[in-house]
Amino acid sequence: MAVRIATLFIYLFIHLFTVLSSAEAAEKTAQPWKLDGREVPIPLGSSQSLQNSLRGIDQPNVAARIKQAPRNRQQWDQMISERAEARNIPLDQVEKMMSVKIDQTAISGVNAYWVTPAKASKEHKNHLMLYVHGGAYVFGGGDASVFEASIISNSSGIRVLSIDYRMPPEHPFPQAVEDTVSVYQEILKRYEPNQIAFGGTSAGGGLALAVAHKIKDLGLPQVGAIYAGTPWADLTKTGDTLYTNEGLDRVLVTYDGMLKAAALLYANGNDLKSPLLSPVYGNFEGYPPTILVTGTRDMFLSDTARTHQKIRAAGGAADLLVLEGLSHAGYMFDLKSPESQLTYQEISKFLKTHLQN
Amino acid sequence: MAVRIATLFIYLFIHLFTVLSSAEAAEKTAQPWKLDGREVPIPLGSSQSLQNSLRGIDQPNVAARIKQAPRNRQQWDQMISERAEARNIPLDQVEKMMSVKIDQTAISGVNAYWVTPAKASKEHKNHLMLYVHGGAYVFGGGDASVFEASIISNSSGIRVLSIDYRMPPEHPFPQAVEDTVSVYQEILKRYEPNQIAFGGTSAGGGLALAVAHKIKDLGLPQVGAIYAGTPWADLTKTGDTLYTNEGLDRVLVTYDGMLKAAALLYANGNDLKSPLLSPVYGNFEGYPPTILVTGTRDMFLSDTARTHQKIRAAGGAADLLVLEGLSHAGYMFDLKSPESQLTYQEISKFLKTHLQN
Repeated sequence: MAVRIATLFIYLFIHLFTVLSSAEAAEKTAQPWKLDGREVPIPLGSSQSLQNSLRGIDQPNVAARIKQAPRNRQQWDQMISERAEARNIPLDQVEKMMSVKIDQTAISGVNAYWVTPAKASKEHKNHLMLYVHGGAYVFGGGDASVFEASIISNSSGIRVLSIDYRMPPEHPFPQAVEDTVSVYQEILKRYEPNQIAFGGTSAGGGLALAVAHKIKDLGLPQVGAIYAGTPWADLTKTGDTLYTNEGLDRVLVTYDGMLKAAALLYANGNDLKSPLLSPVYGNFEGYPPTILVTGTRDMFLSDTARTHQKIRAAGGAADLLVLEGLSHAGYMFDLKSPESQLTYQEISKFLKTHLQN
Repeated sequence: MAVRIATLFIYLFIHLFTVLSSAEAAEKTAQPWKLDGREVPIPLGSSQSLQNSLRGIDQPNVAARIKQAPRNRQQWDQMISERAEARNIPLDQVEKMMSVKIDQTAISGVNAYWVTPAKASKEHKNHLMLYVHGGAYVFGGGDASVFEASIISNSSGIRVLSIDYRMPPEHPFPQAVEDTVSVYQEILKRYEPNQIAFGGTSAGGGLALAVAHKIKDLGLPQVGAIYAGTPWADLTKTGDTLYTNEGLDRVLVTYDGMLKAAALLYANGNDLKSPLLSPVYGNFEGYPPTILVTGTRDMFLSDTARTHQKIRAAGGAADLLVLEGLSHAGYMFDLKSPESQLTYQEISKFLKTHLQN
């Protein structure tokens, strides 16, 4: 179990751009982080497990890695392939860890994975989540795309279809949006729209939000619910917490490195403020009920809160969970932590409330 | 109207510990704030009115004032009386500004104000909010205590009773809790518990949350809803954003000045982590439905989010609104701003959803 959890940690840090060396981690003590002239202590209002995991972070090392951004196609290809290799949890291991069954498929020419929970919830008998993975629109594809899909399938007891949408350098925007919409249209032959949820974290959260805008543009019926975990809802450097939480977010660390480079690679010359790239700039009239999750140290706290604000201001249903001391997507790091448990419990409640039978 | 809004601004800044000089403000331009080694720009994802008001802040001046904390009884008395004098909007002016009628009364020996909206909502015909003002448990009493009570009465169309609970130095903890409970017990003779809401901002938000714990301890029936605006839910220096938003929050600025001094004055030697002083440490089983409001630059963002987390983890209903770029209680500064409008619109919806007829 210890090995399995260690693997999980390493997997997730890679998935979310950074690498944690467990050897280094073990040596660290509870020192405050040093940022500019400030000392910022471990958040004592967070759970013990989150506090412990923060004590293990090699802060300067994380910052150095995150600032490295590929500068050309060759460097991107190399980084993508290195990360794909490092991300080597075989599907049968994920199945075991998460008590799900995973079946690879292709829908409308897009690679995808059916994730079926061992313990299906009766309430979700007729429901499906279409899941789109994170990874800054560049990483996290292939078998790795089933990870959070499996967590949700297991915790909610819902069937999930994880969509391995195509990505840059080969397939930049709008491929991710188009692949997801194609799959949705195919799935609409088997499910009612309000029996379907979209879900995703980070770039996946942003993509889920953008696809809902696209669906409206196309005049297709909207889904019943959206889960947007700390969504990359704005590819520009606008959100307040991109500045205020710089260096405090242990995962994203800064916009001015990998994030910015990935935004430009994905956008491929298109306006970064297009609602299909940065969904926070879209029109939220008639938007589906959406649950959003973030943390006080998340650099995407602002983009998450801004999205929540916009849906509410447009009269829609939106639910926001902000977890004390949590960095970007931190709820995926330690699934036994109270922060993670609360996140997936609230997603489960939200889906059960908003999806129709 | 311009004068009225300027008066409002000055009133509110005083109310929340700081003084804005409009002359100084007019000279300022859109320069990033300088904090330690960092430059933090105006939050461009906030409304134009919030951005404009931030451009007017004399940042170093605010910081200097907030760090001044009275050191003895005489200094406290002086500061309390200076602030009370500065806070000189007569009740008839508040009535006119907010379209409410205000009637002073005494309930169970506690000074209080009935606030009746000119446009009463039919849905709130049988409802009452018991409002407890902010001001770090030291300031904001007397006629000044009707201010946000009047905003809520007007925006929700609900009758409000603003409780001018007694405060230190003369009446430290637990007087504020006891006065509020006494009034509640008296009001229970005229209203059903689930027709009553508690509400307040800052210390008032913390007090509203603490009183709900006390009501449970006493075996009294719980209210139907609570509004806790950026509640001072933890008097200790624990919440993550007390550190991460230090100097960024234009209102509170730092814990290590007035806030800490006021906490110690109010607690009067009692354990700061007692749930009646710091309600975040209480047991939230069976807690009333609660709406919480904060902002990304609020030093009490963490205490607000931690309270939300605890109510949810205990299976209760809690709704969290986080406003982009907003400092502590910023929704009270400019009532025409989108941030303020959304806040009071959401409070109104929440009360209509949760109070019973």
